[in-house]
Amino acid sequence: MKPFSTATIADAATRLRRGEATARELTEACLAAIARHGEATNAFTLVHEAAARQAADAADRELAAGRDRGPLHGIPISLKDLIDEAGVPNTAGSRALDDRRPRTDAPLVARLRAAGAVLIGRTNLHEFALGTTSEDSGFGPVRNPHDLTRSPGGSSGGSAAAVLTGMSVASIGTDTGGSIRIPAAACGIVGLKPSRGDVPTDGLVPLSRTLDHAGPLALSVQDAAWVWQVLVGRPIEDVDRRAPAGLRLLRLRGYFETPLEPDVRHAFERALVRLAAAGASIADGHVDGTDTIAKTYVDIVLPEAAHWHRRLIDERGDRYSPAVRERILHGRTIAAVDYLEGLEACRRFAARIDALLDTADALVLPTLPITAPVLGVQEIEIDGVTLPVRSAMLKHTQLFNIGGQPAISLPIASGGLPVGLQLVGRTGRTRELLEVAAGVEDCLAV
Amino acid sequence: MKPFSTATIADAATRLRRGEATARELTEACLAAIARHGEATNAFTLVHEAAARQAADAADRELAAGRDRGPLHGIPISLKDLIDEAGVPNTAGSRALDDRRPRTDAPLVARLRAAGAVLIGRTNLHEFALGTTSEDSGFGPVRNPHDLTRSPGGSSGGSAAAVLTGMSVASIGTDTGGSIRIPAAACGIVGLKPSRGDVPTDGLVPLSRTLDHAGPLALSVQDAAWVWQVLVGRPIEDVDRRAPAGLRLLRLRGYFETPLEPDVRHAFERALVRLAAAGASIADGHVDGTDTIAKTYVDIVLPEAAHWHRRLIDERGDRYSPAVRERILHGRTIAAVDYLEGLEACRRFAARIDALLDTADALVLPTLPITAPVLGVQEIEIDGVTLPVRSAMLKHTQLFNIGGQPAISLPIASGGLPVGLQLVGRTGRTRELLEVAAGVEDCLAV
Repeated sequence: MKPFSTATIADAATRLRRGEATARELTEACLAAIARHGEATNAFTLVHEAAARQAADAADRELAAGRDRGPLHGIPISLKDLIDEAGVPNTAGSRALDDRRPRTDAPLVARLRAAGAVLIGRTNLHEFALGTTSEDSGFGPVRNPHDLTRSPGGSSGGSAAAVLTGMSVASIGTDTGGSIRIPAAACGIVGLKPSRGDVPTDGLVPLSRTLDHAGPLALSVQDAAWVWQVLVGRPIEDVDRRAPAGLRLLRLRGYFETPLEPDVRHAFERALVRLAAAGASIADGHVDGTDTIAKTYVDIVLPEAAHWHRRLIDERGDRYSPAVRERILHGRTIAAVDYLEGLEACRRFAARIDALLDTADALVLPTLPITAPVLGVQEIEIDGVTLPVRSAMLKHTQLFNIGGQPAISLPIASGGLPVGLQLVGRTGRTRELLEVAAGVEDCLAV
Repeated sequence: MKPFSTATIADAATRLRRGEATARELTEACLAAIARHGEATNAFTLVHEAAARQAADAADRELAAGRDRGPLHGIPISLKDLIDEAGVPNTAGSRALDDRRPRTDAPLVARLRAAGAVLIGRTNLHEFALGTTSEDSGFGPVRNPHDLTRSPGGSSGGSAAAVLTGMSVASIGTDTGGSIRIPAAACGIVGLKPSRGDVPTDGLVPLSRTLDHAGPLALSVQDAAWVWQVLVGRPIEDVDRRAPAGLRLLRLRGYFETPLEPDVRHAFERALVRLAAAGASIADGHVDGTDTIAKTYVDIVLPEAAHWHRRLIDERGDRYSPAVRERILHGRTIAAVDYLEGLEACRRFAARIDALLDTADALVLPTLPITAPVLGVQEIEIDGVTLPVRSAMLKHTQLFNIGGQPAISLPIASGGLPVGLQLVGRTGRTRELLEVAAGVEDCLAV
């Protein structure tokens, strides 16, 4: 994998306070990275050059005057281009929505600004967040910085590419079936889907109001934890790093075990060996009813999308990417009884997954069964099974949108393209999951 | 209208405490009324003769020992036969459900027992609460005590017939589109649909989890208020009676004004004249979008019913009344996008109705555009308009299930069959509505 010149929030915040850098310099470094990687990756739909410089200068003046807003003060952060920023077009990656220019910030944006973040730009995505590769976008496909012929994952693909290459220090994405964790895994960074309800999703173009989550993509668990704390409106504290010794992990078997691309299997097994060697206990876990996961997801997401889009798609359907339009229109054919059954299945899965966590600190599984797919490829064969790329990429992540549990993807050592390890915590326990993840991160550090 | 020998809770409670009656005597009086009217009205599916006598004796012993549980202590109350009572079959008025025998009380039943109520029996209803006449029941049609050829309204028809004739002093019904208020109006008693969320609906056979409400049918506003306080788990207090002088009423025009049966129109106009004479101000109100009320209702209720019934109707559809089965099965054909649009319409209507109540203490309209229909009649002509009986009976009530506001039907003087006047209060303000209703009741007392 290519190395990129990047710094965590923690690094940058330390340098700022030691006088080794200014917020303006951090912003200029991101703008320089954008100049270097922006066009090739197509990660941004809009860069706020002037506004970011102004915000950085203001952050520097505040720090100089003794006002310190905490770890995010002066840190350049990007936003997935479906999050409302006052006065800025919110395209949701579509040519159909290019006149949405909100007058107010989404609540999570207001919280970032209050924490001193410098909003550096808006990241490209799979149109309307309805896809896992970020290749169907009204602004052209996003490309994986590790290999420009490949997808960075999606739908928050631009966010992952931006963080990986230092075009922003962290990014805010959204995740309805995996759209934060999938690109984090495909690009080799950290992606957190908080527990459902943690982070307000008002002021975001929705995909599914039931399953949408917003959360951070970042370079470390600590960074993700800080951003998460700001997004939920809590005081910013360092995350306790829970040592792997004594950690009880439940490795999901069956549906989550096969098929797996050999590189993924190898990296995952090696990570488990290291965790076990560090004293973690790893037991086998099993989720009942996995054959209904995909249907549950589709029966909730597509009707909710079809409902939100009902007028837009009638009026401007020709401006949608054909694949996205077709999928949304398919939502019109789903019966209300199937939607209601989907909601009931969510409650059942939520209870089942939380029950597994009665005897474990976290579930552990590969974030993706595959590595970053080549752009344009629709189907993939793994272990002799042919799957649509979309189904493969959602396969390990969508269940935790259905159940609502917090889930995080961490990069783990691999022989080739990035591989992500997913940890899943109990409903409402995002902080505890972050503590576990921080310990796992330490243990697996290359 | 026939006079029946009845006493309010307030009367009975006073006599109990003066030593002029015992709880056992109140129960015997109800059992005697059941012997007199039970078979003709078919109001009960089950009478708890022995258990009620035991509960009454226990209530008497408690009172004798100085333990007074408040106004409902020793008062015979009936339950619509879709409310779980521990160890008793819950049929929901259907031959398909005749093996549902819950082990625990619904929360509202536990509250009634804790308040000292004597549960005297279970009242017949329109099968699965899906109808307005109470004629399609696995236990045969309920008949209106005023005229046995007519419907008592529904779906809580047995509850209204029971209260009207003194077979129970009050009754607990449910109301998804009007099923408490409609029979209250058709029988000439008081029926309260509390604000959505006031009264727990767990342990009830649902029709629509979104629009279901539970509440009292009684002989007076004071009685309804007491029972409501018990159902919501609040301390029992007398209701303040708000004098009509200075009361700001908004009379709903347009859709709620026509068609109206002449008897209804006449009784309603006369009631408004009396209220105005007593000092109430009566302005005109208008609700936008009334043409979508019926569709909104159907698009929510039928899919939710079809989802709850999905296995039962496949396994035992032959035991359903054909009309009820057909209507539930129709719910399978409704698209999820229409269901979601229905939920959104609920939020819009809720806001519109509450906005009307910014400048008024209550909305006022006839509860029903017609009087009690003759059993077996499917269509009715009013003002030259032909309507299905069901549509006519839901027309003025279902909007406040959609909006969620508290609504009450009071009997008003009429030249023939009973007529109900409906008052509607602001979301969450059931108590304030009861205060207004108590004043209106005083003013309109014959």
